Amino acid sequence: MGLELYLDLMSQPCRAVYIFAKKNGIPFQLRTIELLKGQQYTDSFAQVNPLRKVPALKDGDFVLAESVAILLYLSRKYKAPDHWYPQDLQTRARVDEYLAWQHTALRSCCTRAMWQKMMFPVFLGQPVPPEMLASTLAELDGCLQVLEDKFLRNQAFLTGSHISVADLVAITELMHDNGLSVLAAKSLRADPNWLPGVRE
Amino acid sequence: MGLELYLDLMSQPCRAVYIFAKKNGIPFQLRTIELLKGQQYTDSFAQVNPLRKVPALKDGDFVLAESVAILLYLSRKYKAPDHWYPQDLQTRARVDEYLAWQHTALRSCCTRAMWQKMMFPVFLGQPVPPEMLASTLAELDGCLQVLEDKFLRNQAFLTGSHISVADLVAITELMHDNGLSVLAAKSLRADPNWLPGVRE
Ligand SMILES: N[C@@H](CCC(=O)N[C@@H](CS)C(=O)NCC(=O)O)C(=O)O
Ligand SMILES: N[C@@H](CCC(=O)N[C@@H](CS)C(=O)NCC(=O)O)C(=O)O
Repeated sequence: MGLELYLDLMSQPCRAVYIFAKKNGIPFQLRTIELLKGQQYTDSFAQVNPLRKVPALKDGDFVLAESVAILLYLSRKYKAPDHWYPQDLQTRARVDEYLAWQHTALRSCCTRAMWQKMMFPVFLGQPVPPEMLASTLAELDGCLQVLEDKFLRNQAFLTGSHISVADLVAITELMHDNGLSVLAAKSLRADPNWLPGVRE
Repeated sequence: MGLELYLDLMSQPCRAVYIFAKKNGIPFQLRTIELLKGQQYTDSFAQVNPLRKVPALKDGDFVLAESVAILLYLSRKYKAPDHWYPQDLQTRARVDEYLAWQHTALRSCCTRAMWQKMMFPVFLGQPVPPEMLASTLAELDGCLQVLEDKFLRNQAFLTGSHISVADLVAITELMHDNGLSVLAAKSLRADPNWLPGVRE
């Protein structure tokens, strides 16, 4: 059995893995895990990822969780072009720095913003308290400021003049099919050229 | 100017960086940033790390934040022994997986447990509500269970039979000089041999 990727394309880190594999022509079997149907709780999925989260990878007997680890594994195993995870010591350190930073910063803020703006109202039948949403959006603003001032600066991409896995991880947090417009609008503010640049 | 490390040894990720540098005979200037004195808020430190957190690294003109990025940078630049961040594709992926997982799991739980058990009572002059502490400790228990079942399993170290940066990052969260005994006790439960093994 070749490479299998367990994904739900509604999930941001899954989209980063999916885009990376597609862009690099990596052959894989897509195993869809529908989170909204609770498919992460099946016994068979627990064999692949006891953390019960997507994305997860299965490559023969080897199973792996965590989008960042999966992206790096794929880039090494399939020798993806250097720009995705540059050999250059300092450029690679910038990518690592972004990948470490985002867990507790941009990803955490975007996840909360999405839940409070879209999911909770659906589940609870009413919007979350406006102060709660305002405070989450203010935190998100702070994260976007860091994204802009510390990482993006005047560069075309987050870690320099070429796209890296850091851009994929960032952009999939900020762009949502279902038009989570507050995120898209805020991220466009960050740099009007960066988003379209990554999209290509 | 050679390598400078901006650290407060009260901070868990700083201790991981410090132990790694010392263990590998990496020469550096220690720049102490005393967090309790608010030294992270000085203008001069903002030049090194605009995120205003320790650890931070300065190597000539190059500055870098995030302990995970710093550990990997040092291991590459100073060609640390392979076991710290193994070349082997699958073992390295396991280390990456741990490093990604811990941000929102063990680190997040330990930080909250430490604040609620030690810092808040000092600052507020009274203990935090017992239900709050109980729920944090229950979450911590869940994290330690994952540490044990998914990562450590029956191995000597988190990612196999040799110590890696993942062990350093984990152990510095779990061990506190000032005897945060609940963490130490719980982590000893995880595996009676692992802690002493990493200590050596
Ligand atoms: N740090 C993980 C996060 C994975 C994650 O949070 N996945 C979510 C979807 S975006 C999930 O599977 N949630 C299922 C659940 O919690 O039940 C990664 O980057 O892979
Ligand atoms: N993800 C960062 C976390 C760094 C961090 O949280 N540092 C804390 C000390 S443990 C800090 O500098 N806090 C200062 C502050 O927040 O004012 C890393 O791994 O380096």
